[in-house]
Amino acid sequence: MTLENDRMIRALLRQPVDRRPVWLMRQAGRYLPEYLALRQRVPNFMTFCKTPDLVCTATLQPLSRFPLDAAILFSDILTIPDAMGMSLRFDPEKGPLINDPIRQECDLQRLKPVKVLKDLAYVIDAIRLVTKELDGQVPLIGFAGSPWTMAVYMVEGQSSKMFTQIRTMTYQSPQLLHTLLTRLAVVTVEYLNAQIVAGAKIVMLFDTWGGLLSYGEYLEFSLHYMRFIMQRLHRSFNGQPVPVILFTKNAAPWLSQIAASGCDAVGIDASLNMLTVKQQIGSQVALQGNLDPFLLFAKPEIIQQRVGELLDCFGSAPGLVVNLGHGVDRHTPVEGVAAMVEAVHQHRCSL
Amino acid sequence: MTLENDRMIRALLRQPVDRRPVWLMRQAGRYLPEYLALRQRVPNFMTFCKTPDLVCTATLQPLSRFPLDAAILFSDILTIPDAMGMSLRFDPEKGPLINDPIRQECDLQRLKPVKVLKDLAYVIDAIRLVTKELDGQVPLIGFAGSPWTMAVYMVEGQSSKMFTQIRTMTYQSPQLLHTLLTRLAVVTVEYLNAQIVAGAKIVMLFDTWGGLLSYGEYLEFSLHYMRFIMQRLHRSFNGQPVPVILFTKNAAPWLSQIAASGCDAVGIDASLNMLTVKQQIGSQVALQGNLDPFLLFAKPEIIQQRVGELLDCFGSAPGLVVNLGHGVDRHTPVEGVAAMVEAVHQHRCSL
Repeated sequence: MTLENDRMIRALLRQPVDRRPVWLMRQAGRYLPEYLALRQRVPNFMTFCKTPDLVCTATLQPLSRFPLDAAILFSDILTIPDAMGMSLRFDPEKGPLINDPIRQECDLQRLKPVKVLKDLAYVIDAIRLVTKELDGQVPLIGFAGSPWTMAVYMVEGQSSKMFTQIRTMTYQSPQLLHTLLTRLAVVTVEYLNAQIVAGAKIVMLFDTWGGLLSYGEYLEFSLHYMRFIMQRLHRSFNGQPVPVILFTKNAAPWLSQIAASGCDAVGIDASLNMLTVKQQIGSQVALQGNLDPFLLFAKPEIIQQRVGELLDCFGSAPGLVVNLGHGVDRHTPVEGVAAMVEAVHQHRCSL
Repeated sequence: MTLENDRMIRALLRQPVDRRPVWLMRQAGRYLPEYLALRQRVPNFMTFCKTPDLVCTATLQPLSRFPLDAAILFSDILTIPDAMGMSLRFDPEKGPLINDPIRQECDLQRLKPVKVLKDLAYVIDAIRLVTKELDGQVPLIGFAGSPWTMAVYMVEGQSSKMFTQIRTMTYQSPQLLHTLLTRLAVVTVEYLNAQIVAGAKIVMLFDTWGGLLSYGEYLEFSLHYMRFIMQRLHRSFNGQPVPVILFTKNAAPWLSQIAASGCDAVGIDASLNMLTVKQQIGSQVALQGNLDPFLLFAKPEIIQQRVGELLDCFGSAPGLVVNLGHGVDRHTPVEGVAAMVEAVHQHRCSL
């Protein structure tokens, strides 16, 4: 099926576009009143994620409101640990919680082998549904958490202030951690490839916690496994290229290695100067992001101005996807998102 | 008074030294059994901080155990907000808590004017005591939180996952925030100068939360106020230079601006490649830090190896202070700290 709007694909491949594509990380979710209404029907988050028609509705909600250039599957980065039997649940304040975290070698024996098409069928079914509903209007982005980020939750049991358990494990039991990361990476390959076959036109790896590692550790425990995954993905399907986006929060120390890791595009958080990043790696990969999620709380004029500055700093160079540097905050006013998307549509520049 | 061991001062001024100086951020505190024993006498943290003889004992405890090249005052980065009347208290899990945080213009009226020599006399008295006890063996480091970092706690009320309150304030009420930051910066100048007069030979600014800002915001809301402070400090006292160290966690995007901000040395966290940083700013300022706090949980051989790699990457270039990239974790084994300090003392290199 040919896409009506292929700006995202073209921008990710650094091809010319008539206008910069725009979408927002976590564009479906808690800041949208229609999502909150939908969730009231199924308050349990994982039950919601495991119900394909609800997932399909949530995925499409932001596209009804805003003229976005891509949809992203409504799901979670911890579906794989859940499928491994770690019984994921969500606390409204603490976020994801996992019982009996991995602390020693014998804990690995508890992890079930994952059959993606069976154990994660709810994700694949949701992708098929969304793909059908989208009917080629815009591409659907599939995604997975990076092995390191999944391992953080599996070892800590929850989000943490200091991450002492996994940070000491890198020094005290590196082999245990490598065994776990390898298992996660292998399943992630199968998981993302199944998403591509089911209809995802782009895939993204979310490495939320890679940036808390020391310089050498990031290369060894996080980037290594993302490279492993990217080498094994369907990089084209049905004759169409499938671009891969890699996003590590606080990635500044490793930009050049990330750009050389085999991805098509790099997610850039708001702490970086996009002009500097463009000079550093913009000729190798496309760049996505960089707008401050909290900018969306500002007046529309300020939002318009900052979006303009981002677009102007890129000039007519190829390979820019407008996005936030991190997910939409749950308290974000819907008007802020509208103003950002509108600003991209209105911007006049010499493309 | 002449210092017996002036390696720290010399390294911070990029002068030749016979051996690299070493100390650890948060070297006094919860990982030390003797500190935990001392705290049992005064369980309330702020009461402890306000008792100069206990502060003096805690400050000197790590120097009895390890051959360190500097002492750092045992205190907290939130003494100034406390003196402004924000009644700081500590929760063992949540960390610092502040009642009635600053949310709007009228909240600023609640803040009391601070008379440093009266309201923070407990800090100044402790510095005098420590200085007397040290008797010129090693320099004492005085410190303060950066205005931005203090403001984070004053606006959020506590450490936060998303920092939504202050992050929206930068866009919705920037003038309110600038008024608050200016007041904090003015008091910090007086506070650090009083520490220098009382005996501190080095001062350090801790910008724990600057790195969560977007690129332009860090320059406007954090670095600007640290520069304001540094321009007004006693940069020499009694004929001796008083070096200033600036530490921002996750500072990678702003290294060149930090190096040009007027500090003598920059604290470097563990995420950065020290060799790259040295090439980038090592001819302008001294560099401190970079060892991973979690390295101290490793076997002594690993600790020795990593310390050796850090020292070797600096070669014979001036301006290195060995330290962690962040504070000592409370669960750190004392033997790990011993191994790190020992490794610096034992290292053979061509200085």
